[in-house]
Amino acid sequence: MGYFRKAIEQMAGYISGFQPKTADAVKLNTNENPWPCSPKVLEAIRKLTAENLQKYPEAVADSFRDVSAVVLGVNPENIICTNGGDDLLTICFRAFCDADRPVALAEPTYSLYPVLAGLQGCEVIEMARDSKGSLGQLAQANAPLTIICNPNAPTCDFIPIDELAVLAGQLSGVLLIDEAYVDFAEDNAVRLINDFDSVIILRSMSKGYSLAGIRFGYGIADAALIDGLMKVKDSYNVDTMAIAAATVAIGDQMHLKDNVKKIKTERSRLTQQMRTMGFEVPDSQTNFVLARSVKKEAKTVYEALVERNIFVRYFSLLGLDDKLRITIGAPEQNDKLLVALTEIIG
Amino acid sequence: MGYFRKAIEQMAGYISGFQPKTADAVKLNTNENPWPCSPKVLEAIRKLTAENLQKYPEAVADSFRDVSAVVLGVNPENIICTNGGDDLLTICFRAFCDADRPVALAEPTYSLYPVLAGLQGCEVIEMARDSKGSLGQLAQANAPLTIICNPNAPTCDFIPIDELAVLAGQLSGVLLIDEAYVDFAEDNAVRLINDFDSVIILRSMSKGYSLAGIRFGYGIADAALIDGLMKVKDSYNVDTMAIAAATVAIGDQMHLKDNVKKIKTERSRLTQQMRTMGFEVPDSQTNFVLARSVKKEAKTVYEALVERNIFVRYFSLLGLDDKLRITIGAPEQNDKLLVALTEIIG
Repeated sequence: MGYFRKAIEQMAGYISGFQPKTADAVKLNTNENPWPCSPKVLEAIRKLTAENLQKYPEAVADSFRDVSAVVLGVNPENIICTNGGDDLLTICFRAFCDADRPVALAEPTYSLYPVLAGLQGCEVIEMARDSKGSLGQLAQANAPLTIICNPNAPTCDFIPIDELAVLAGQLSGVLLIDEAYVDFAEDNAVRLINDFDSVIILRSMSKGYSLAGIRFGYGIADAALIDGLMKVKDSYNVDTMAIAAATVAIGDQMHLKDNVKKIKTERSRLTQQMRTMGFEVPDSQTNFVLARSVKKEAKTVYEALVERNIFVRYFSLLGLDDKLRITIGAPEQNDKLLVALTEIIG
Repeated sequence: MGYFRKAIEQMAGYISGFQPKTADAVKLNTNENPWPCSPKVLEAIRKLTAENLQKYPEAVADSFRDVSAVVLGVNPENIICTNGGDDLLTICFRAFCDADRPVALAEPTYSLYPVLAGLQGCEVIEMARDSKGSLGQLAQANAPLTIICNPNAPTCDFIPIDELAVLAGQLSGVLLIDEAYVDFAEDNAVRLINDFDSVIILRSMSKGYSLAGIRFGYGIADAALIDGLMKVKDSYNVDTMAIAAATVAIGDQMHLKDNVKKIKTERSRLTQQMRTMGFEVPDSQTNFVLARSVKKEAKTVYEALVERNIFVRYFSLLGLDDKLRITIGAPEQNDKLLVALTEIIG
C-alpha cells in the first residue's frame, strides 16, 4: 500500500484476548470480574435522558474527579480521566516518548506497552522483572518514561511501595505505575504523588469495579503533570454514560470491598487446589493466577480446556510458554475449571 | 518541569467550546443538535445489564459495523468505529504523519487538525480554503495526509464530490474527508471509496444523530486501509453502551431524516432573518451558520449575547474575527437569539 508510516506497515498490532461467542463458555481469559457492578451503576445509567446524550460530555469529567478525589484523598486537579487505562497509556507514550526518548520496562509485563512504543516510534529498554536487581537497572537506564505494572500482569507479583519510592527518587524522568489490578493487592502507591512530581498512577474501573464494558480509567499525579497530560488527551475522551457509571461506582466502596473479598476467597481456593494437582502457582495480588504446568505442556492443557469450552490465556512467549494465565472466576466457573484440569492432568 | 516532549511543553492545547452551567442558557456554541435522539437509543441503553458491562466491549464494534454497512451500502470491513470523530483524526495522524510526513489543510477549518499535527510532530502545509484553486494547491502539495472538512467547519461551504474525486486521483497519499456535518448537506462522498483505496470518510454520531454525549464516530474506507487503522486504535476504543446506542441510532434513519428536516427549516429561517438585520450569512450545508457582523464588531455582539446568557462561538483569528459561528437551535432558542440580536444591533 505505502500509505502508512513504516512503523505501522511493519507492525502486527496488539492481539486482545479471545471473546468466545457461546453464552455457556467459561471465560477466564481476559481478567474480567465475575460479580456484577454496584446496582447504583445501572440506576445511574437508566436515569440518563436524551438531553444528557445530546450535549458533549464534561470535557475533563469533573463529576468523577470530585468523587474520586475524596475516595483517594487527593485533589480533583490530581486526576485525569481516560477512555480505559489503555487511553492513559497511549497519552503517556505520546507525551513523553519519541525517537530520542525511550521507554524502560521490566519484562514480562503487559504486552500492550511495546506495541504503543512501536506506534510512537520510541526505543524500548527492556530488563528482566524476575531478577532482584531490576529496579536498580531501571534506575540506571533512567529513561524519560519508566513503566512498572504493579501488581504485575501476567506474573501477579507485587513490588513493595517503598522500593518504588526509591526508584522514583533515582529517576529524572516519569515513573508510571500501572495499578490496573491494585484493588486486589495489599497496598497501593497513591501516597507517592505527594513526594514526587514525576509519578503517575494508572487506575482502571475494568477489574475491581466490574466495568470493563464502560472503558473508564484514570491517572493520579501532581497537578502540573496532569495539566500536561490534558493537552494530549482527546477533547472529550470519556462519554457521558461512562462518567455517570464510573462516578457512582467509585462512590460505592462498600460494594468494591465486598466484591474483592469474594475474589480473594476464590483466588486462595484455586491456588491451593491447583498446587495440589501439581501446578506451580505463585501467590497472586491480582484477580488472576499465573500457573506453571509441570505435568503436561501448558499449550496442551490450554487446548484441552478450549475443547471443553473453557478459555484461559496462553502466551507463546519465552518464559511464559510453560504457564497459563487464569482469571479468578465465580465459584461455579472455577469448579468447572478444576474438574477439567483434573481430567486433563489425569 | 522538563518531563514532557518539547512539543507538548510548548503547546497550548485545544480549547473546546465553553459549556455554560446554568440550565436556562441558550447554548448555540458547540453545534449540538437541539432535538432528542431516537427513542430507541434510550430503550437500548436501559436494556443493558450488569453482565453486559462486566465484559470487555466488542473489540471492533461488529454490531455497529453490520448495521451501518447496510445503511451506507458498503461492507462491514469498510468501517472502523472510533471514540468520537476526534479519535479517528488522532488515529490518522498517528498512522500517516511524522516529522518527515506532513499534513495538508485548507484553512480556515476545524481547529483541532493543527493541534493534532503539533502532538504528532508533523509539519502543516496550509492553504486558503476560500481561493478557487485550493484543491489544485492541495494536489500540488501532495502530502502523505490531506484533510478536507466537507461541509467545512466553520465556513459552512460544501465542495462538490466530483472535485474531491479529481483531488483523490491526483494525490499519492491519503485523502481524509471529514464529514462530521454531512447529514445536513446535499451530498456525501461515500461512493469515492469504491474508486480510491486512499480515501477515508469520517462520520460522527454527535450532530445529525443528537448523540454528542456518547462519543461515537466512524471511518469508511477501503478494507486494507481500515486494517491498518485498526492497528493504531486502542484495543477497546468504544464502549458497550456507546456501541448499543450508536447501533440503534444509525438503524433509525426515519428519525434522522425528520430531525435534519427540522434543522434545515430553522437554518433557512435564521439565515433569512439575520440577513434582514444586515448580517452577511452565506448559505450553510451544516447545522450552524457563520455570520459576518457588519454593523457592529463581532466581538462586541458576542459579549452582549453572553450578558444575555446566550452562547455562540467567536474565534479571535484572522479572517474569522469579524464573524460569529451560531449553532441552529430549536425554534424558541433561535427566537431568543433573534430578539437579542435585534436589541444589540439596534
